[in-house]
Amino acid sequence: MIRVAVDGMGGDYAPQVVVEGAVMAANDFSQLEIVLVGQSDALKQELNKHKVLGGKIVLKEAAEVIGMGESPVASIKKKKDSSIGVCVEMLRAKEVDAVMTAGNTGAAVAAATLILGPLPGIKRPGIAISTPTTHGISVTMDVGANLNPSAEELYQYAVMADVFAKYVLKKLRPSVALLNIGEEPSKGTEAYKEAYKLLRESKLNFIGNIEGRDFFTGKSDIIICDGFVGNVVLKMCESVLETMSGILTKEIKKNPVAMLGAWLCKPALSAIRNETNYEEAGGAPLLGVNGTVIISHGISSAKAIRNAIRVAGDIVANRINEHIIDGISPTLNGAPAR
Amino acid sequence: MIRVAVDGMGGDYAPQVVVEGAVMAANDFSQLEIVLVGQSDALKQELNKHKVLGGKIVLKEAAEVIGMGESPVASIKKKKDSSIGVCVEMLRAKEVDAVMTAGNTGAAVAAATLILGPLPGIKRPGIAISTPTTHGISVTMDVGANLNPSAEELYQYAVMADVFAKYVLKKLRPSVALLNIGEEPSKGTEAYKEAYKLLRESKLNFIGNIEGRDFFTGKSDIIICDGFVGNVVLKMCESVLETMSGILTKEIKKNPVAMLGAWLCKPALSAIRNETNYEEAGGAPLLGVNGTVIISHGISSAKAIRNAIRVAGDIVANRINEHIIDGISPTLNGAPAR
Repeated sequence: MIRVAVDGMGGDYAPQVVVEGAVMAANDFSQLEIVLVGQSDALKQELNKHKVLGGKIVLKEAAEVIGMGESPVASIKKKKDSSIGVCVEMLRAKEVDAVMTAGNTGAAVAAATLILGPLPGIKRPGIAISTPTTHGISVTMDVGANLNPSAEELYQYAVMADVFAKYVLKKLRPSVALLNIGEEPSKGTEAYKEAYKLLRESKLNFIGNIEGRDFFTGKSDIIICDGFVGNVVLKMCESVLETMSGILTKEIKKNPVAMLGAWLCKPALSAIRNETNYEEAGGAPLLGVNGTVIISHGISSAKAIRNAIRVAGDIVANRINEHIIDGISPTLNGAPAR
Repeated sequence: MIRVAVDGMGGDYAPQVVVEGAVMAANDFSQLEIVLVGQSDALKQELNKHKVLGGKIVLKEAAEVIGMGESPVASIKKKKDSSIGVCVEMLRAKEVDAVMTAGNTGAAVAAATLILGPLPGIKRPGIAISTPTTHGISVTMDVGANLNPSAEELYQYAVMADVFAKYVLKKLRPSVALLNIGEEPSKGTEAYKEAYKLLRESKLNFIGNIEGRDFFTGKSDIIICDGFVGNVVLKMCESVLETMSGILTKEIKKNPVAMLGAWLCKPALSAIRNETNYEEAGGAPLLGVNGTVIISHGISSAKAIRNAIRVAGDIVANRINEHIIDGISPTLNGAPAR
């Protein structure tokens, strides 16, 4: 049995949607047990709306809540009894095997970094997110934990994302690319140029630099970048479908024939929506900390929460952190694996 | 009469498409005279295919060509008689008023920086590009000239983009935003946090930080960012329409009813294509150098070349560089204008 602590108070629609997603996960995945952490009264009230099969959800009290806008490190240090803090503390004490939160991302990263610390050999943790492309799922790392990574940190992100893509997404030999401003090895900042060399000399399936235009095309299974550009690009992705369909709807409404046409296209559009559905990908693992922590989008639906909890279980079951330590250890003395 | 030197050899489809665009500009804009720079035989051969009204194109020989993949600074220093180098040298000698190139962007930036130098008070030049959004044209700066700008450089980009938006795009009081990883002033790297303060204290219409999701929505008339993230984001934009219609076409072809629907939607789709047409925006000015230099995309069509030459003329006619010097001078002693 894999025990996952779920931050019941984290997210724009917590606790309602989080509890609904936790119940779905408990009922759908037989190997998981959920510890729902937060203000017990509020959580009980939501739990009572659902039927949980086989008593696979237990409650754990945490009196405080960290809001989406609060300062990450300060709030973690000040609110000792926050739901995310208690989740991560349980993970440190090995009372659970993983943590899932849809709350304040910065606070989750701060709690994990301060309470769990890094995996042996890892310089800085990073967030790996799965995004749909025209050729299947790509993993982008980092998307906001580390705004100014060194070359070695970028290299370590590639090693970690490679393990995640292999053992969780079941990609046989995932391709790895650096997101850069041009394809030549000489492009980008010093950190990117140096990371290019480290990646080229590594055992990873490194295909070189890719540019922004290849982000959606699935040219690479893994896309490595700093957390600043990763965050901006990720949020652009989220808005693209919405913006495009907004423009389309406006134009189509001007023309009755086009309105009929759009109606006839509906099944094709639904198929695209399913193909590029962020709910399916679930949460984003914070890789490189000494424990399994999954961060889900603040606006996650119950289904997205369920899938993020599933990913937490998959990471534990597939011993991702052991594989990361194995992958990174040859570089401990500075020389990447060849 | 405004004289524009056009790099006849720069671009993926040079000299053919560049000459065609130069002829269009010469015929369409009565106030412009074009100096077509490059290998005279090749240029003459292309020119003979077109009719130029009133002899408004002259040729200037430049024996060498800098390829799209060549190292910018090294190629400019080595090839003394390159088409882009000769263009910029003519600008320095005041034989022309502006330069337009669709060639190697790095080489154009290097030539302008080395030969022209910066405008008084400007730390580093940057590239300002106009992108279509759901609410009109936005200006994004920088998109690749300066990968790691300081706070003051980011601030100066805002001043320069503001002048461009006011005097060329005729926006009355353009809004200015920083592209960042969150809306709070505390977000981003040290340079971004400090730039936020400088912008808030300035006379600009600063609306704060925006995130990736607002890039397409036209929330701000001007979007300020470092050249790395600007370049990645710009290239993503370019591919979005293409990628989305690729996915759409694939799905629609699976379903004959949807194929009929798509055919009925065609006029609406064409309207979107026109609304978001990069050809209209023309080239991107390199702002902050002591002269007017317009950089156009390597894959520019003749129409895009024509419009980039028009923008070069507009910048000269509207005395953009004088306005930039006026806008920047209160900050010469370190304190931004209030």
